[in-house]
Amino acid sequence: MISFKNDYSEGACPEIMQAMMKTNRLQSDGYGLDPFCEGAKERIRQKVGNADCDVHFLVGGTQANLTIIASALRPYEAVIAAESGHINVHETGAIEGTGHKVIVADSAQGKVTLEGIRKVVTAHTDEHMVKPAMVYISNATEIGTVYTKAELSSIRRICDEYGLYLFMDGARLGSALMASDNDLKLSDIAELCDIFYIGGTKNGALFGEAVVIVNERLKKDFRYMIKHHGGMLAKGRLLGIQFYELMNGTVFFDLAKHANAMAQKLQDAFLQLNCPLFVKTTTNQIFPIFDDEILAEMDKRYACTIWEKVSDHTTAVRIVTSWATKEEDVDRYIDDLRRIMK
Amino acid sequence: MISFKNDYSEGACPEIMQAMMKTNRLQSDGYGLDPFCEGAKERIRQKVGNADCDVHFLVGGTQANLTIIASALRPYEAVIAAESGHINVHETGAIEGTGHKVIVADSAQGKVTLEGIRKVVTAHTDEHMVKPAMVYISNATEIGTVYTKAELSSIRRICDEYGLYLFMDGARLGSALMASDNDLKLSDIAELCDIFYIGGTKNGALFGEAVVIVNERLKKDFRYMIKHHGGMLAKGRLLGIQFYELMNGTVFFDLAKHANAMAQKLQDAFLQLNCPLFVKTTTNQIFPIFDDEILAEMDKRYACTIWEKVSDHTTAVRIVTSWATKEEDVDRYIDDLRRIMK
Amino acid sequence: MISFKNDYSEGACPEIMQAMMKTNRLQSDGYGLDPFCEGAKERIRQKVGNADCDVHFLVGGTQANLTIIASALRPYEAVIAAESGHINVHETGAIEGTGHKVIVADSAQGKVTLEGIRKVVTAHTDEHMVKPAMVYISNATEIGTVYTKAELSSIRRICDEYGLYLFMDGARLGSALMASDNDLKLSDIAELCDIFYIGGTKNGALFGEAVVIVNERLKKDFRYMIKHHGGMLAKGRLLGIQFYELMNGTVFFDLAKHANAMAQKLQDAFLQLNCPLFVKTTTNQIFPIFDDEILAEMDKRYACTIWEKVSDHTTAVRIVTSWATKEEDVDRYIDDLRRIMK
Amino acid sequence: MISFKNDYSEGACPEIMQAMMKTNRLQSDGYGLDPFCEGAKERIRQKVGNADCDVHFLVGGTQANLTIIASALRPYEAVIAAESGHINVHETGAIEGTGHKVIVADSAQGKVTLEGIRKVVTAHTDEHMVKPAMVYISNATEIGTVYTKAELSSIRRICDEYGLYLFMDGARLGSALMASDNDLKLSDIAELCDIFYIGGTKNGALFGEAVVIVNERLKKDFRYMIKHHGGMLAKGRLLGIQFYELMNGTVFFDLAKHANAMAQKLQDAFLQLNCPLFVKTTTNQIFPIFDDEILAEMDKRYACTIWEKVSDHTTAVRIVTSWATKEEDVDRYIDDLRRIMK
Repeated sequence: MISFKNDYSEGACPEIMQAMMKTNRLQSDGYGLDPFCEGAKERIRQKVGNADCDVHFLVGGTQANLTIIASALRPYEAVIAAESGHINVHETGAIEGTGHKVIVADSAQGKVTLEGIRKVVTAHTDEHMVKPAMVYISNATEIGTVYTKAELSSIRRICDEYGLYLFMDGARLGSALMASDNDLKLSDIAELCDIFYIGGTKNGALFGEAVVIVNERLKKDFRYMIKHHGGMLAKGRLLGIQFYELMNGTVFFDLAKHANAMAQKLQDAFLQLNCPLFVKTTTNQIFPIFDDEILAEMDKRYACTIWEKVSDHTTAVRIVTSWATKEEDVDRYIDDLRRIMK
Repeated sequence: MISFKNDYSEGACPEIMQAMMKTNRLQSDGYGLDPFCEGAKERIRQKVGNADCDVHFLVGGTQANLTIIASALRPYEAVIAAESGHINVHETGAIEGTGHKVIVADSAQGKVTLEGIRKVVTAHTDEHMVKPAMVYISNATEIGTVYTKAELSSIRRICDEYGLYLFMDGARLGSALMASDNDLKLSDIAELCDIFYIGGTKNGALFGEAVVIVNERLKKDFRYMIKHHGGMLAKGRLLGIQFYELMNGTVFFDLAKHANAMAQKLQDAFLQLNCPLFVKTTTNQIFPIFDDEILAEMDKRYACTIWEKVSDHTTAVRIVTSWATKEEDVDRYIDDLRRIMK
Repeated sequence: MISFKNDYSEGACPEIMQAMMKTNRLQSDGYGLDPFCEGAKERIRQKVGNADCDVHFLVGGTQANLTIIASALRPYEAVIAAESGHINVHETGAIEGTGHKVIVADSAQGKVTLEGIRKVVTAHTDEHMVKPAMVYISNATEIGTVYTKAELSSIRRICDEYGLYLFMDGARLGSALMASDNDLKLSDIAELCDIFYIGGTKNGALFGEAVVIVNERLKKDFRYMIKHHGGMLAKGRLLGIQFYELMNGTVFFDLAKHANAMAQKLQDAFLQLNCPLFVKTTTNQIFPIFDDEILAEMDKRYACTIWEKVSDHTTAVRIVTSWATKEEDVDRYIDDLRRIMK
Repeated sequence: MISFKNDYSEGACPEIMQAMMKTNRLQSDGYGLDPFCEGAKERIRQKVGNADCDVHFLVGGTQANLTIIASALRPYEAVIAAESGHINVHETGAIEGTGHKVIVADSAQGKVTLEGIRKVVTAHTDEHMVKPAMVYISNATEIGTVYTKAELSSIRRICDEYGLYLFMDGARLGSALMASDNDLKLSDIAELCDIFYIGGTKNGALFGEAVVIVNERLKKDFRYMIKHHGGMLAKGRLLGIQFYELMNGTVFFDLAKHANAMAQKLQDAFLQLNCPLFVKTTTNQIFPIFDDEILAEMDKRYACTIWEKVSDHTTAVRIVTSWATKEEDVDRYIDDLRRIMK
């Protein structure tokens, strides 16, 4: 059985595993106060083109989201997100658990719209309602689409207009930056967002998200916030070691490029085979719609995730590729599908 | 510079690193729903002698503490701990962050006393005060002492008398169980506690704590609690892989035994050299009191943690050994100290 | 200027003011442990036809909502509400402040639909999402509509099917029970809901909501929850004194009846004058749509609340009457409107 | 039975009751946006000698404490209090319920000591511990003592030294200001504290605490915080009406003066009768130690609160007087005691 269920089905890329082995017996201070983390932060600061930003490493995405949002907001403030936003649906109320409401704004293709943000802000007028204070976006989004530079710039402007922080969840940022229709650079993101993170878990690391804080006001005591929420790793160096490798030259980008290429090869094949798409994407998540009989046949050899029923006899599924996806598995998948669809 | 600052200065024991490498390219489901976790849970259930207990793996200790306490208590309920209890002093208010008060009970040698528990419970009489609902103990304690079977049984009885849960923080449980004055077995702990965890981070793992839930009432929806607090690891198998190795035969115990032996060799040397102890322990944490000049000299080659000033010219320090401590480093330390103290 | 802005613009009904004066110098124990509260509870138990229910008095509605929801739910559990539900929009994130997500279900006329509840529950399938655990409804709703016995019974059944608590916010329960299309009795509500409250603030009291707990599982330690959330009134007897008067004979119902009659007189006049309604109601809140010029003219003498712009030149407003609304003011309002609309 | 159990056993002073009656049918806007509140705020600003301070009215003390502390602190920050501090023992974990730890500092006579504050601050050194950010004091304290101007000034200086907010819980501020050994004026308190409140509940009001915010940084969005925590009263004017009366001329001070005089008359009698005191106070709370037989006899006619057992056969009790205490009851109490003690 080959799994296309997600991009965290395997361990880590070889560079990371080697570094883990090589450094294993070295001693270092705990909680991220070690030279590995320092080195990784330095590389990230260079890559994002901002020598002044703060960088912190966290183990996972939900942890990053809740720590960032709880750190930025006062108790009665709320964060705006798309209906499909990870913090809105797939974090078991972790944001609300820190006391903050997630307000759903209108979105299109998984992306929050300007009009959606404006509508939310103008509807929240007084102290009987929460105060919107931050816009949360995921890039790539939960359905594999990406924000263009024009879109992100517009969101920045509306955030400035209304005094909102802009926070980008970059759990799949590598894939977004390597998308064919992407025109954003890491440095653009650092210029346009107040805070964002670079996802390692879904792009070749064992685990780890690198939080980049650009806005001065969000920097204070972030380490207290991490510890307060149980997110401070004793052997913090494990995060440093991994990001030091990911941020070495083009490693991070190459891993994402491969994941995207594998997904796009599959998507191209679906189009060729006249298999409709639930949404057309340019990243490592694709959403073909299968006839249920064909899906049942494919399920015998390949695992994927049911997305939603589209009609009585068709179903949209989510297929995810990763840095570890083997091209031969992709080719075999396409061959099998072609054979079955005949 | 040799560090005796803590037991999480290095990576992981060889068995774990090999397993990490060997399994790296295998695919598995995320979030701990994988065969590695299943295997590890099975081994833990056998070792604690309870086939019905629930086992969950979390990345770190603060995360485990806050998830367990928040899961067991209603909003107005509180947890009783020693003044030195980790949840009371070293978790940046993580427990209070989930809404619960930590009530300090009298303690001796880092261990909560029966009389201390009784005093707290009888002082909290009505709805104008929090309601004590759980006793938290660390074993080994934060100052390296251990609970005997008689002590733990007495605490169990007082918990039963007052309707309190008993929760053991086992971040250093391996070291406790290998202490010369220990008479507890894992199975005793599973019989006497409602919930406890077996620490991996401080005993040879890269990270990881195995939460064991014995009391039926505490089992419900624990995975929801983990996710709600941001503690669910995407590549959850990393925890399973590690505990599967730790729980293989005597690996876990051998690692702790070595750590204890190294610390005790140092403590014996201190006694021989007439160096007073702040507290005499039987585990991997020791607390010699040094003349400040001698300490300054030793600090040039060996790192440890200042515990507290004892007099104008003497200081208690904490020295911690681990599974990775080299006996040659211990011997060299003793030699150097002997030379300096002459 | 006559205000129709809300039903809490005046003090309290004469019965309450007299009782306040009469009892003013009597001594009693604090925190609701007094004979006035006991008497009021007894009257409520009789009126709801349930001798076993617990009754607690709280000062206000948001306080009641957050205390009830936080008491009933575990940290990862969520409450289902209509988009217009008070807890969803008008409580400044008070529910999220206690850690719980409010999930919006489809609604019609301000009332949660069965299909809406079902859709929410079936979409929340695993521990990566919050767990729906309670349905919150307001009766009367925020737009002045009421639940019929058939509707409430259906919601009860779906709650039983999915293991959800049913909680009715009765801030305007008096008005609902006196609505022309109401077929619910207080005793029906006590049979169909797990917990609900009877609103005093908006029906003749200075302040106060009487929480009625029917479900045994929700009774435990509710006073702890009240105090934990800062809702325990020192001179708790003030709540007892007021509800003792409200629950005397038909006082509570008569006050609501008057409020409804005044609103309905206005609504009838609007219909007669061919003034469209945003929504037709049977309670003390009505929602006429005015031409903006007419509204401007009326605003000179009568205050109401802008609800929303309906077209370029028309606006829906909310008019609220109360136990204290004078019929002569209503008549004058109608006369003035008739004159202006000509 | 005459009750000396507390200072909230009766309703309100005549001035307040008359104003309540007189204004009862007037209409006003809700939520404290009414002329009564404006008038009361104006009087308070004059009395505290600060035209720029913000004033907000809350129903009760626990509510005021939790709203103020949660508003001032970031999630990982903590508040320092005396062991006997109301927030530490008698609020059912309300402060922890908002996520913040209460750190106990050494105290003497119920008053936090400078050395106690210093010890707490210097012990909290890094992000593994909470960050002390506020000092909470009660004046009068929970055991009836008061802070002198010199003491309060010293605490202010140490707060400045360490960057801490200074917050005074003035639930019994009237009594403190009227104490024979008091040398503080309201304007001193406004100069030395960042935020404080003037207690109405325990000094002649039906309920109500007037929060005075002096420090600019604490003013922002306080009304959001009130509503977020369920503390915004619909008929907010009730608070305005009461404080407008209390702040009229010397009403507030006269009420407290009477309460103090009654308590001091009792205390003087105890001393004369050679009845020892648990603590000697100058406010409306006194703490005689009675032989248990005498106490049993007195309990037949007078209610008070058991404070603690002092010896096998003696008990300290708390006796509280109020604005409503009748001198004839005090005299009768003294007569009865004299008779019994013979």
